[in-house]
Amino acid sequence: MRLVLNSPFDMHLHLRDNEMLENVAPLSSIYFRGGLVMPNLTPPIFSKDDVLSYKKRILKASKCDDFEPFMTVFYSKELNVEKLQQLKDYIKAVKLYPAGVTTNSESGLSELDFSAMRDVLDFMSNNNIPLSIHGETNGFILDRESEFAPIFENLAKEFPKLKIIMEHISTTTLANLLDKYENLYATITIHHLLFTLDDLLGERLNPHLFCKPIVKTYKDRETLLNLALNAHEKVSFGSDSAPHTKSSKECANGSAGIFSSPIALLCLAELFEKHNKLDNLQKFVSDNAKKIYDIELSNKEVVLVKKDFLVPENYGTVVPMFANKTISWSYE
Amino acid sequence: MRLVLNSPFDMHLHLRDNEMLENVAPLSSIYFRGGLVMPNLTPPIFSKDDVLSYKKRILKASKCDDFEPFMTVFYSKELNVEKLQQLKDYIKAVKLYPAGVTTNSESGLSELDFSAMRDVLDFMSNNNIPLSIHGETNGFILDRESEFAPIFENLAKEFPKLKIIMEHISTTTLANLLDKYENLYATITIHHLLFTLDDLLGERLNPHLFCKPIVKTYKDRETLLNLALNAHEKVSFGSDSAPHTKSSKECANGSAGIFSSPIALLCLAELFEKHNKLDNLQKFVSDNAKKIYDIELSNKEVVLVKKDFLVPENYGTVVPMFANKTISWSYE
Repeated sequence: MRLVLNSPFDMHLHLRDNEMLENVAPLSSIYFRGGLVMPNLTPPIFSKDDVLSYKKRILKASKCDDFEPFMTVFYSKELNVEKLQQLKDYIKAVKLYPAGVTTNSESGLSELDFSAMRDVLDFMSNNNIPLSIHGETNGFILDRESEFAPIFENLAKEFPKLKIIMEHISTTTLANLLDKYENLYATITIHHLLFTLDDLLGERLNPHLFCKPIVKTYKDRETLLNLALNAHEKVSFGSDSAPHTKSSKECANGSAGIFSSPIALLCLAELFEKHNKLDNLQKFVSDNAKKIYDIELSNKEVVLVKKDFLVPENYGTVVPMFANKTISWSYE
Repeated sequence: MRLVLNSPFDMHLHLRDNEMLENVAPLSSIYFRGGLVMPNLTPPIFSKDDVLSYKKRILKASKCDDFEPFMTVFYSKELNVEKLQQLKDYIKAVKLYPAGVTTNSESGLSELDFSAMRDVLDFMSNNNIPLSIHGETNGFILDRESEFAPIFENLAKEFPKLKIIMEHISTTTLANLLDKYENLYATITIHHLLFTLDDLLGERLNPHLFCKPIVKTYKDRETLLNLALNAHEKVSFGSDSAPHTKSSKECANGSAGIFSSPIALLCLAELFEKHNKLDNLQKFVSDNAKKIYDIELSNKEVVLVKKDFLVPENYGTVVPMFANKTISWSYE
């Protein structure tokens, strides 16, 4: 069996910098037509110069000319309309992290004061710049995402013209907001479609499945699966693929993040096929994103075949999701 | 400040075998008057011969003559009255593991069929042998213990003369059974008094806090704290200290278990002092156990002093709880 995907997009992607960028960028660029690149470097991507120079480094590391890195800027308290005016032609979204909720989010916002943010958010509304949000509080690990729901609701109501992307949703609570507010959208990862807390720590502890937001319950997974398999039109695929070295995962103080980008499409094909929904995969990995993010690019065919693929033990210093396991789909 | 503990007991203890036994036995024997030693070796402790030879190895490894290893036998489906008759003078409890719920529990019971167990449980009732149970189902990780509650209730009702110990309780659900059934008792670990899921994985991932039953919510911790700090008379301290090598914890497939025995009393002193309950510590770590398990032994004073103690990075191959951290109490 052969499956042609037209221009798959990864709408939530961590490429890091330097050696790690060199290692992982080609593993996205070969299989995707583009990806929304997260700005949480150390220091984060704040300015137009940061954006342009990071994009240049990504393109160089990508080693192919048919991958478009959609750039984002980090929403710090220094962001203002003047800076956005300079940035707007070079970014696809603004990424907002509440301070401290994930890797390199220390410069994020410690208070979400909408009145202080009004000028920026109005400008984004008027210029059709989506606001991507890591929607978690600093509460108890399992409640963090659900506790953020009222903030999404207030934001959606206060800024009805603002396109708000709820990133890597992991709960039924946030999923339920999609049909309630016209201007709320979401991305979903492959790992939140596949795993629950039981996979992370139900038997032994697998640090390579440790991520933020944490994988959750069977009910949450079921809800997300329904959205993805039916290619809900307000949801795009975003891997949240986040490379960390093996030594920073298998240690006493492990980093959060799952590295899935090189195998994400294979896993999705396997999952959609299992549920007899292969016909919807094109929408989930591309068509929806095109509409949500106004993407217009030449086509790139990525062809999958029904053939076993043994996931490598590592890609350079990074251990991927499903290392040493077999997936029933390969790239042609 | 100086705190004299008379004969502290650790009523749930893993000493393993061979090199690991040599490493950890002295770290319990020096600070405790005795401990209930779990039988989940590979293969488990099944027979009188197993018990006697394991006890001999423990005593040898303990390197002191004032530590009493209270022996247990593993409840497999081969256990019967005849075997128990031979065992009864050499064991302090029978330990029941539902199959597959924790380290080396594969030989445990896959079905808890009370009618098939009746002869054994009646014999134990009549001979005052406690039944210690790891009370978890094979369900979703966070629900496993609560799902086991009806089994404890049925067992308590069916065998009203049987002393049933709910081991290392981690939830309000099981805690609430203590006052409902006269014949239900419990042990509580130091880590379930100190930690929640947030400590295990709320920020970064700490495999040295990965254990079964998993640490849970703030509410659960609060419930357990209330039982311990008030030295509820049906509750004993049991560390569930479970040594694993550093390499089997900091890896892609980590073992469950927290190694706390050498510092458990120090942590308890710090915790009870913080809550102004130091006066109750003697009951929690000794007096209650004496009554529940009918322990009659000469006294052993273990003296703590209010003085900083830097927890070692490792004890041999094992990383302890609070490695490299400072506790405000030391052994004299």
